[in-house]
Amino acid sequence: MENERDSLAQAAQAAQKEKGNQGGLLSETEARKRALDLVESKGIAMLASNGEDGTPRIKAFVKVETEGLHRVWFSTNTSSRRVRDLKRDGRASVYFCDEGRYRGLLLTGAVTVRADEEARKRLWREGCEIYYPGGVADPDYTVLEFNADTANYYEGLSNLTFSAAPVTPS
Amino acid sequence: MENERDSLAQAAQAAQKEKGNQGGLLSETEARKRALDLVESKGIAMLASNGEDGTPRIKAFVKVETEGLHRVWFSTNTSSRRVRDLKRDGRASVYFCDEGRYRGLLLTGAVTVRADEEARKRLWREGCEIYYPGGVADPDYTVLEFNADTANYYEGLSNLTFSAAPVTPS
Repeated sequence: MENERDSLAQAAQAAQKEKGNQGGLLSETEARKRALDLVESKGIAMLASNGEDGTPRIKAFVKVETEGLHRVWFSTNTSSRRVRDLKRDGRASVYFCDEGRYRGLLLTGAVTVRADEEARKRLWREGCEIYYPGGVADPDYTVLEFNADTANYYEGLSNLTFSAAPVTPS
Repeated sequence: MENERDSLAQAAQAAQKEKGNQGGLLSETEARKRALDLVESKGIAMLASNGEDGTPRIKAFVKVETEGLHRVWFSTNTSSRRVRDLKRDGRASVYFCDEGRYRGLLLTGAVTVRADEEARKRLWREGCEIYYPGGVADPDYTVLEFNADTANYYEGLSNLTFSAAPVTPS
């Protein structure tokens, strides 16, 4: 159980350090900036959607493309249980986690399952043939377009919830 | 976008390597062993439960204690949205992810929110005072007992679903 104790001790230590850091709470502008930085630095994101019985199911996906905090693109197999689940209930969340620094970003919204040519071509990358031998038109190749409504970013003692919509310069 | 391409390219490379490794698919016994190893090696797990409107919400938690693949213990703030959500709908999943090796374990089941003394004492660790200044009896200290029904382990091209119940020696 050494490792388990270590994790909690490390988290407590990080929190203690933050607590001593008076006035260190993030503004929304700063949180947005750090959230974007987290999204850009991570190659993997967690996606959760509901199974048939309503139990949420998490899976790690390679994040293929992102637009700000409001859109994340993934690809997966058309034949997968995940695609079946998402077609029935598109409500979903995407989570980016920086385990070492105790910070994370939760985006909540919905997934649109896309099989159109525009989406397929957009997400296609070198090496995708290993997953979809038929190439960009492979019927087992499906694109997931996740659109976020809300973002929740935490780091240290800061925990902010804000709209995931792009900020329009005033 | 270099980093994004790299992630997909790395995943494809790993899959390609696995594909060449004929007969390398895991048996259930081996998958259970590796899943346990993953659980023990990780200090952090993702927990997903449903928000008020049914949208799944993911959050990283420090894994405080585990029992095989069938039970995971966390602690959190009684006043948190998560506790409110879990009291309304305990259905949940816990995910352990090894990002570097493209393997992961999804446990699906339900969370019981516990505030009894036995659970509080069991989960209390040195350093917890930073989160719960009132100590083990702090009213803002709550224990989450997650019980898994089903496990899904994937690694390379292996993807196995099995009962999360402990295997009784025959």
